Formats: sequence, structure tokens, C-alpha cells
Amino acid sequence: MEIQAYMAEARRVTDARLKELLPAETAYPEVIHQAMAYSVFAGGKRFRPMLCLAACEAVCGSWQPALDAACAMECIHTYSLIHDDLPGMDDDDYRRGKLTNHKVFGEGMAILAGDALLTYAFEILANLADETNSRQVVRIIQEVSRASGTAGMVGGQVVDILSEQTKPTAELLQYIHNHKTGALIVASTRMGAILGGADEVQLEALTQYARNLGLAFQITDDILDVVGDARKIGKPVGSDEKNEKATFPALFGLEQSRTMAADAVQAAVDALAPFGAAGATLAQLARYLLSRES
Amino acid sequence: MEIQAYMAEARRVTDARLKELLPAETAYPEVIHQAMAYSVFAGGKRFRPMLCLAACEAVCGSWQPALDAACAMECIHTYSLIHDDLPGMDDDDYRRGKLTNHKVFGEGMAILAGDALLTYAFEILANLADETNSRQVVRIIQEVSRASGTAGMVGGQVVDILSEQTKPTAELLQYIHNHKTGALIVASTRMGAILGGADEVQLEALTQYARNLGLAFQITDDILDVVGDARKIGKPVGSDEKNEKATFPALFGLEQSRTMAADAVQAAVDALAPFGAAGATLAQLARYLLSRES
Repeated sequence: MEIQAYMAEARRVTDARLKELLPAETAYPEVIHQAMAYSVFAGGKRFRPMLCLAACEAVCGSWQPALDAACAMECIHTYSLIHDDLPGMDDDDYRRGKLTNHKVFGEGMAILAGDALLTYAFEILANLADETNSRQVVRIIQEVSRASGTAGMVGGQVVDILSEQTKPTAELLQYIHNHKTGALIVASTRMGAILGGADEVQLEALTQYARNLGLAFQITDDILDVVGDARKIGKPVGSDEKNEKATFPALFGLEQSRTMAADAVQAAVDALAPFGAAGATLAQLARYLLSRES
Repeated sequence: MEIQAYMAEARRVTDARLKELLPAETAYPEVIHQAMAYSVFAGGKRFRPMLCLAACEAVCGSWQPALDAACAMECIHTYSLIHDDLPGMDDDDYRRGKLTNHKVFGEGMAILAGDALLTYAFEILANLADETNSRQVVRIIQEVSRASGTAGMVGGQVVDILSEQTKPTAELLQYIHNHKTGALIVASTRMGAILGGADEVQLEALTQYARNLGLAFQITDDILDVVGDARKIGKPVGSDEKNEKATFPALFGLEQSRTMAADAVQAAVDALAPFGAAGATLAQLARYLLSRES
């Protein structure tokens, strides 16, 4: 209950700041700004911003220093979804129950909207710099660029595409998830921690937390795709199976997948030990993952 | 003659450094690194890196401080070409006489190769930071993100796409070029200057130089498209006309376009006055533009 109120508040502040940071939809050339806003405000869970804010708060008692970085991570996440949905990639018509970007704005504009959101994320981060914190800003730009490139998210997408032609192994599945979704989840958490002024022990603890959380997140996503309600998750149930994608239930069965998700959440919570009471929100966020329905 | 030797040398050091900076083609997942390298080493003129290096040299006497930034700009330029050629954008099969990225690696991989090159450009820039120069690094990241987003290159591409349905005006043509190609040319020059330690007067002079150079570059590009030799420029002559794109010769005629290009080069050279003899290479680069055949 409490954690749901926290999550709603995190979503509210993230959305409000994103509206301030993104170019106005009335700014020339309007259509690209409309295309960007369409997907950024298409009902995302703001899971990565939430982690960024909560990690910062666990370290320094306030999420404020991490707010713009949280928004930048959502821009990167959104760009990856827009490009993932393109006809040349997954060719999806719907996402979260709404038409995908290219179905509304056309393929060319969707490619450019993704490009612009990725570019804009770095502008938001660079604009964080003031007289005293440039080294910190450079460090988070390093974090996010590594996590988003071929050693991170893009690498995971590449292997995901390649794996469609072969029977996936557990090793391959782990690689895809650690990179395609895990890297950005870990980076969001680490960036929040860095902006909160984390020392190395805190940063390492939050990295372990985020790695396990990312794993739990992906397993529950795969489970929801098998057993979930199509209306709630906004895409046809079983769509991954139809495309013969590597999923946890396909490889390990539903029951073992549930156990793996629960174990990963416990490992995430255990990693928070150095924070004591200050880690409570992050622990609740992790536990909430297991119970979510969309 | 002298300037051609300088240009060849700038190309050589840029290519050598790009080979060092980019992930090895043997690094997993190999195909994305091969796709990135394919387009980065597809015979580009390295015009933006050259400007970055020469601007730095005009300011501090050495191009060395600007070398990695020059490579980052070429990564961004290459990403924009890969995405521009996609079926959802210009749908080109050839570029510089070679098959376009998506014709060789497939559409999904081409989208990701572009995404990765854009991301990697920011990683290269962030990695420039050491104990003392973080503020400078943040500043060049601001430069390049602004020049590449909807207020710059992407904005120009958007208006270029939109203008295909209407009769282009001179105003629209200027907007497209100032943003689509001009912004990155100006940013490359400014970044080289900043990394060379330029003061505000030098930076403003080089900005004026680059704006005029970018204009001359685009006009000569348009002229070459009309009168050039297909073999030399590597795409079918008249291809812009076929697509009914806004071009300088279409709007102003060939003769006036040539005058405009010469005037812009002269304005670029005039802007270099504060540099005296140290501006000689940049002046020769500008003059060379007028005589180029590809």
C-alpha cells in the first residue's frame, strides 16, 4: 500500500519534470516533438526513473538530485521501445494498448523520434552540470552510454534478433536480458546513487540490488506474458511465444520461473543490508515486483 | 596541393584513431560491430573531423586535443547517414558507390548500428575527461547534443521529410541545410576550438567561419548533384531532383548557386581574420570546397 503511494508520487514528479524538460509540442518542427511526447507519455510505468530516484534517496535522503537523470533514463528507455517496434525490428502495431509510434507518425518520423530522444537524454545530463559537479556529470554520462551501447542494451537487442533463428539456451536468455533490460536498470540505479553522493560500498551494494531486481523484473515480465491478462499488459498474451522468443517459462517452466523470480527479489533485498532502514523503499519496490499484474 | 596533403593526413589520423576507439569487429556480438565499421569505413571524406582538428590547431597549434572529439563527430555523421538511407526514410540502396548498411546487414541491424554509433559518440566524449577538464568535456557534450537533436540535425531531417510534399521556398531550403548539415559542421568546428582552449572571440570567429563553410558545402553538394559525374560522387546524378528535393540549383539556378557558394567561402575566410597566419589551413580548406569534384 505504502509502496504504491510512493510509486505514484515518483511517477507524478517524473512526468511533471519530463513535461518541463522535453521541447514543447508547439515548438517547430512540431511533428517530431509530438512524436516524442506521444511515446514518452504513453503510460509507461516509470520503473527506471523510480529506481533512480529511490537509489538517490537511499543514499542521501532526497530524490531531488536524481530527478533529471531519472527523466533522461526514461527518454532512453522510450527511444529503445520506439525503435524496437519498427517494421524493421519487431514490427508491432500496439504497445501498452496504444498504436505504436510509427503507426501514428510514420516510419521515418518514428526513427527520428527515437534518435532525438536518445540525443536529448545526453543533453539533459550535460545540462545538469554547474560550477562544482562536472566530474559527477561526466561519470553518469559514461554510465549511461556504456549501458545503452553494444556492451549493454543495443548488444542485448542484437543477440535477441539473432536468437530468433536458433533454439535459445539458458545462457543466451540470460545474456539477452542482462543486456537488453538489465543494463539500463542497473545504470538507472547507479546514476541515482552517484548523484546522491554514494561511496564505493553503497554503489556496489546498489549494483547488486539492481542486477537481481532486473532479473526478477524480466522473469515476471515473461510470466505475465504467459498467464497475464491481455488488457492489463496492453499486448496480446503469448505474443513472445508466437514469435518464438526466448523466455524463462519456455526454458524453465512456470513454477521454476516463479521460484527464480522470488530468489532474485530476495537477493536484491539482501544486497541492501548496508543501508539499514534507509533501504526500506528499495526493498518494498523489489517485493512489489513479484505481486504486480502488469 | 598543400591543403590536399593536409586533408589526407587528417583523414589518416582520424581513421587510425577510429579503428582504435570503435569496438573490434571480432568482439561479441560481432555483427553489430561489423555493421558499425562497415559504414564508418565506407570511404567518407572525414570533412567534420578535419574541421574539428583544424579548428583546434588554429587555436593552440596542435590538433591532438581534438582527435577523439573528431572521431565522435564522424560516428554521429555516420549514424545519420545509416538512418537516412533506411527504407522508412530515403530508401537508398547505395551510398558512396557501396551498398547501404541495411542492404548488407538488414534493416534491424542497420537501425541498431546507427543507434550504437550515436551512443558511442557520447561515450568517446565522456571518456575524454580526466582530473582537470571535466567542465570542458561537459561543454562539448552540450554542443554536440544540441547540434544533433531537434534543434539541429534531426530537426533539419524532419523538415526535409515534410518539405517533400510541398514546393520548397528559399527560406525552407536554408532551414533544412542550416540544421541537417550545418549544425554538425558548426559543432565540429566549435568543439575543436573549445578543446584547443579558444577564448570567446576566437570561438565566435570560428562559428561564423563554420556557418559560412557549411552553407558553401551544401551549395556545392547540390551543384555536384546536378553537374557531377555519377562515378565520382557515388550516387546517381540528379537523384535529388528525381525525389523533388529542395536544392539550391532548383531554386536559384546553377550560375547564381555558384556565386552564392563563392560568396559564402569568402565570408568564411574573412571570419578568420583574428587568427592571422594561424588561420591559413582553415582558409585553404574553405577554398578547396569550391574546387572539389566529389
